[in-house]
Amino acid sequence: MRDAFRVLLSNFQGGEKKGIVLNYKLVFRLLGRLMLIVAALMVPSLIVALIYGGGDALSFVYTILITAACGAALNFLLKPQRSDLTARDGMAVAGLSWIVLSFFGALPFWISGAIPYLADAYFESVSGFTTTGSTILTEIEHLPKGILFWRSFTHWIGGMGVLVFTLAVMPKLSGRTSHLARAESPGPTFTKLLPKMSDTAKLLYALYFALTLIETACLLLAGMNVYDALIHTFGTAGTGGFSNYNASVGSFQNPLIEWIIAVFMMLFGVNFAIYFHMLRKEKETILQSEELWFYLGLVGGATLLITLVVLPQYHGFFEALRTAFFQVTAIASTTGFSTTDFNLWPLFARAILLLLLCFGACAGSTAGGFKLSRILLLFKTAYRDLEHTLQPRKVAVVRFEGKPVAETTLSQVGVYLSIWLFLAVVGTLLLSIRQSDLVTAMTATLTCLSNVGPGFNGVGPTENFAFFSPAAKLLLSFLMLAGRLEIYPVLLLFSPNVWRKN
Amino acid sequence: MRDAFRVLLSNFQGGEKKGIVLNYKLVFRLLGRLMLIVAALMVPSLIVALIYGGGDALSFVYTILITAACGAALNFLLKPQRSDLTARDGMAVAGLSWIVLSFFGALPFWISGAIPYLADAYFESVSGFTTTGSTILTEIEHLPKGILFWRSFTHWIGGMGVLVFTLAVMPKLSGRTSHLARAESPGPTFTKLLPKMSDTAKLLYALYFALTLIETACLLLAGMNVYDALIHTFGTAGTGGFSNYNASVGSFQNPLIEWIIAVFMMLFGVNFAIYFHMLRKEKETILQSEELWFYLGLVGGATLLITLVVLPQYHGFFEALRTAFFQVTAIASTTGFSTTDFNLWPLFARAILLLLLCFGACAGSTAGGFKLSRILLLFKTAYRDLEHTLQPRKVAVVRFEGKPVAETTLSQVGVYLSIWLFLAVVGTLLLSIRQSDLVTAMTATLTCLSNVGPGFNGVGPTENFAFFSPAAKLLLSFLMLAGRLEIYPVLLLFSPNVWRKN
Repeated sequence: MRDAFRVLLSNFQGGEKKGIVLNYKLVFRLLGRLMLIVAALMVPSLIVALIYGGGDALSFVYTILITAACGAALNFLLKPQRSDLTARDGMAVAGLSWIVLSFFGALPFWISGAIPYLADAYFESVSGFTTTGSTILTEIEHLPKGILFWRSFTHWIGGMGVLVFTLAVMPKLSGRTSHLARAESPGPTFTKLLPKMSDTAKLLYALYFALTLIETACLLLAGMNVYDALIHTFGTAGTGGFSNYNASVGSFQNPLIEWIIAVFMMLFGVNFAIYFHMLRKEKETILQSEELWFYLGLVGGATLLITLVVLPQYHGFFEALRTAFFQVTAIASTTGFSTTDFNLWPLFARAILLLLLCFGACAGSTAGGFKLSRILLLFKTAYRDLEHTLQPRKVAVVRFEGKPVAETTLSQVGVYLSIWLFLAVVGTLLLSIRQSDLVTAMTATLTCLSNVGPGFNGVGPTENFAFFSPAAKLLLSFLMLAGRLEIYPVLLLFSPNVWRKN
Repeated sequence: MRDAFRVLLSNFQGGEKKGIVLNYKLVFRLLGRLMLIVAALMVPSLIVALIYGGGDALSFVYTILITAACGAALNFLLKPQRSDLTARDGMAVAGLSWIVLSFFGALPFWISGAIPYLADAYFESVSGFTTTGSTILTEIEHLPKGILFWRSFTHWIGGMGVLVFTLAVMPKLSGRTSHLARAESPGPTFTKLLPKMSDTAKLLYALYFALTLIETACLLLAGMNVYDALIHTFGTAGTGGFSNYNASVGSFQNPLIEWIIAVFMMLFGVNFAIYFHMLRKEKETILQSEELWFYLGLVGGATLLITLVVLPQYHGFFEALRTAFFQVTAIASTTGFSTTDFNLWPLFARAILLLLLCFGACAGSTAGGFKLSRILLLFKTAYRDLEHTLQPRKVAVVRFEGKPVAETTLSQVGVYLSIWLFLAVVGTLLLSIRQSDLVTAMTATLTCLSNVGPGFNGVGPTENFAFFSPAAKLLLSFLMLAGRLEIYPVLLLFSPNVWRKN
């Protein structure tokens, strides 16, 4: 899902001419439109609040009015002279819009008093939109229903990519919107499914809706009420992981529900293009998808190994298998639900989970992490180079899913690895200033950068992020945004070259 | 030192023709010559054993006889038809010779009974030659003097690169020896200092000897006896870190000795080419060396930060400064000596040390780790790519130390990062099967891969590696060898393409 709209930047380079600066008016006008969308997206939560009458309805009314007013002001007052969007504008819009989006998304939490501090509310909102699912809430179950609905709904919005959605439902502002889609949609490579980009987008949204409906239906049939079913479907579909219960999915004590959610977590970690090929019965293409088989192999292998390792801690093989499969899909798909305190598992099981947490799932899904296609490309490049050492004259091309991969793509994947590691290292170092446990500092950083949710030790599945200082929460929010937008748009906001005149 | 003899593989590709297989006879003949050298290099330890009369002299006599016999047999019985060395042969010789070298180097420990198990003796020998300094010994001080001398002498041999030494002191066997030098000498780029490679080698050896003599003299002046001074100079020069005292350098309780060793650890982490330029008074070249200034900046910055953080644990600023400086240089230069139990330091200080441990020091020094020049190249490539996102049409070349860097070099650095990480991850995963603490498993892996010595928690500076299973010790030995030879020659031993016919 995330990378489905990638179009090569080379399509358009209108802003490359000398003397062209950031199109501030256009950028802020787009932000205004985004706010209008966000205001509209809060209406369902307002309705839920009204239905349950929990006293949180007013906070939505206020937020919708504030957001819509700001959005309308920016949208109608700013008149950009140029309506073309350069690569630089696209990066700026993507980076800024997710920051702004999270800010307005945090207002209901704060205004309703559910989260008294703004830094906390912002963290929770970022965690929602980036589909991370890390929480600063220690006690969830007594919060108003509308607030919890909004909290989980942000996962669903974030999973499908709000910027592309903005462009899809609004009249075209700019002839060239590919920069926005590119900035928001991760993954190292992109395959257009249909000739027109907008048709591809519609198709993928249809798949997202369909899978959402099917999961909700399954959960209802398994005995969940409508509210719980929607909350957990949003968490699964966006691979977010917020639950409305303190014990997450474990609170249902229902094996059937666990299996359903586990299977859907796995499904939402698959490249949505695979479902498209399934509908068209293109068996060959599916069989050729190395990323898919690598993903299924990883999930299967990890489930088996962990089942064997944690067997003594559960009543029999099948309970161990179910718990292992649930936790593996929850972490590999970067959802972060839990049915058990995996912090108590043997180190080997935890180490496997930590690896899956960093890897993430397939490009083109709603999952976060480093993405398996990148991992595969790194492996293939390394193997090629090792063989090259033996036979320096042989020129070998790296092939992925049947096609040769450009050298620039390979080198970009290497660079992405360095930047990803850089953020992981800097995050861990900064958190370690106030922490005493390396595993807590490191896994908090990694789980936020990978958009997973829980980590180990101090941020394990039964713990939460409340104890961090406001500065640490902002740092983690930054890491979540960087992870969701695949770093570049967020990091470039710090580059003076984005803002200054040439 | 390590990369001083690199010559591009492209010089020679005689073995690339179809049907040419590994030159087994030549490879094993070279291994035979290496054994003869090793036998000769054990003579000083035999003399030390005889002087102190600790009963370990006989173990050296046996080992020298066995090693020389094996070496002579291989050297005189094998008559290779071709005397040219292909890239493949070079890789095989490098990988095998360090494995074989460590085996014969382990015999004195085992035969003398100082280390009763062969796996332990092998670990200790690998740790010595790879200049790691991790030990399985729990009680060092009562071991025979000859054995401890040999243990530290392996650092000094390993630091200067034994293969190149073999070629330097023996009559030329092959016209083309650059493959050997390349396989043994790390670093992403290479600058020849003198027109002839053999002159460059001699010059660098002269520098290595000179610095060794100066440090020994300084330590003698500071009050050490000759034996201790030699042991600690070997440990410093090879950036190894074996001491003959349980409390390492901390046992002397002598600030002057700590300062001297700290300064020399820092000096042995510098690219030896810098000293050459100093002798020639080439100020410009030294000022342009980005890696040198990055190294000094890292050491300085880390010392300052750690001093501030650990201040409450010591008596005053200067003790904290001295201890911090010592530990920073010990870890950054990948030596691994200690004067304090840094495992008790606040997490922030430990996290900085862990980062330095992975980074290592300058290419062309005796230090291990990832190498700072590679880190700099990763940074520069990442920055270039970030800017490229903003201006896709602008073609920017990465410059390092004043010169443009080839794109293939940049991509090789990226690949090296992936392979390095791969080994770190696999090592940690495998160790976590039998361990319960993630930090122990992870830092044991990293400290071996970086050839440092101590890690944190279970492998902290006051602990040792004795508790690992024999399988884990072999795994860690493999990681030390991979780290010392910069992975490729060791990993390629597992490639069927090295061994099979084309």
